[in-house]
Amino acid sequence: MKTFSEITVRYAETDQMGIAHHSVYAVWYEVGRTEYVKQFGISYTEMEKAGVMMPLTSLECHFILPAKYEDEIIIETIPYKVSQARMSFEYTAVRKKDKVKIGWGRTEHGFVDSVTHRPVSVKKRLPDLFEQISNDALVKK
Amino acid sequence: MKTFSEITVRYAETDQMGIAHHSVYAVWYEVGRTEYVKQFGISYTEMEKAGVMMPLTSLECHFILPAKYEDEIIIETIPYKVSQARMSFEYTAVRKKDKVKIGWGRTEHGFVDSVTHRPVSVKKRLPDLFEQISNDALVKK
Amino acid sequence: MKTFSEITVRYAETDQMGIAHHSVYAVWYEVGRTEYVKQFGISYTEMEKAGVMMPLTSLECHFILPAKYEDEIIIETIPYKVSQARMSFEYTAVRKKDKVKIGWGRTEHGFVDSVTHRPVSVKKRLPDLFEQISNDALVKK
Amino acid sequence: MKTFSEITVRYAETDQMGIAHHSVYAVWYEVGRTEYVKQFGISYTEMEKAGVMMPLTSLECHFILPAKYEDEIIIETIPYKVSQARMSFEYTAVRKKDKVKIGWGRTEHGFVDSVTHRPVSVKKRLPDLFEQISNDALVKK
Repeated sequence: MKTFSEITVRYAETDQMGIAHHSVYAVWYEVGRTEYVKQFGISYTEMEKAGVMMPLTSLECHFILPAKYEDEIIIETIPYKVSQARMSFEYTAVRKKDKVKIGWGRTEHGFVDSVTHRPVSVKKRLPDLFEQISNDALVKK
Repeated sequence: MKTFSEITVRYAETDQMGIAHHSVYAVWYEVGRTEYVKQFGISYTEMEKAGVMMPLTSLECHFILPAKYEDEIIIETIPYKVSQARMSFEYTAVRKKDKVKIGWGRTEHGFVDSVTHRPVSVKKRLPDLFEQISNDALVKK
Repeated sequence: MKTFSEITVRYAETDQMGIAHHSVYAVWYEVGRTEYVKQFGISYTEMEKAGVMMPLTSLECHFILPAKYEDEIIIETIPYKVSQARMSFEYTAVRKKDKVKIGWGRTEHGFVDSVTHRPVSVKKRLPDLFEQISNDALVKK
Repeated sequence: MKTFSEITVRYAETDQMGIAHHSVYAVWYEVGRTEYVKQFGISYTEMEKAGVMMPLTSLECHFILPAKYEDEIIIETIPYKVSQARMSFEYTAVRKKDKVKIGWGRTEHGFVDSVTHRPVSVKKRLPDLFEQISNDALVKK
């Protein structure tokens, strides 16, 4: 199930072009990712405590229209592809007032042990979460 | 000519995983871009005063190894492709102490007028800069 | 009237100590300030369009307890002191789940013209806003 | 001994007022603090490994003149007061090109154990560092 996260552009997030700086989209998408994981009753904090972290291996952002200070933006988050060792998320940023898509992005993650930082199988560590994410993924294997 | 910019990872740039947060690479690559433009005797500030801005249309980051607090990182910046209306840059992040490549990225930009935000030809507005960037570009037309 | 703004600590806001970095409190307090001004039917964006900006002259933050990733924090914002040319805000950061005060701060601002950056009287430029803020101020002249 | 750290204002650090956002001064002052500690041959990273962390208990920033994108700023850092359990630093931000002081600040820190987060005596844990910092402190006990 897609998650919808609401963001209001902060003053600190603008730059001298008068728009939200491009680097903050990665932060907003992360907020979406957090809320996506949370809907399954497991916070990302609990996931890290369970010994699983999901560091990024890549990030891709496409900017269609600028976001301005105080704009309300909806971040839609959905898993893109999932395997035991890796997964990706897809994000869409939509301006709330007129439903215009202003950007989109994708992140790829590896599942690693939070102590050793070595790859782990999320299927074994968190089987329920794995199944739920797999069901949601846009691309089925 | 490639530009080499030195970054020291700031404490504020780390996250609770103990590594530099992925969103700051976009900021570091921007530092590289600034220094690249500056080497031609024109600062990005002067470029904006000359009526040309280069907002991003896309950002791509690949993370190979984590950067830690106080790590010294060299950002190598080089134009990737240039046309009158658009250009892209490529960045490589190298850990200074052992010359290991820890990440790389690319940004795509459109040239726009700094008042109207409409597309402009950088070839007409800043012909010298355009020629110099074109000479450096990795991909020739 | 005090404003209550809800913040959820973002992953990007944590540092390698595992807590929200101290610099982000200034950003949260700014979110509170934005919402405080907004309640009077004037957004900070409209205020800037009306030619009035409120750059900070000072910032003070006191950290009592750390905020952790995914903590929900309530930022309480109230004007502290107001004059024609200057004003200050006071902020309290309260952890939502147990109502514990984790920090507080204050910012001082000068009112300046958004083009000339010279001091302006907010009493003359935005008389309604001035009166409403004055009524709310903790310290009466 | 005072430390001098050079900062170049990053584009991402500006806001739509066209100046460096006030929250980044805390980040710059932290860079100064890092370099101050480093001059004694102990990096802050090593200090944390030695089991000592210095979380902030307060932050104070005074803004005199705005910093602009690409401005080169010198951060001068000096210990202000030191005791076994606590210390404070004082920072001055000076614009390099004309030596104008654009801001100053102070941070207060408690020394805590990096695992238990309980107060520790830095005098016992890191006696050499303690003595060197004490010698530098502006305010003698």
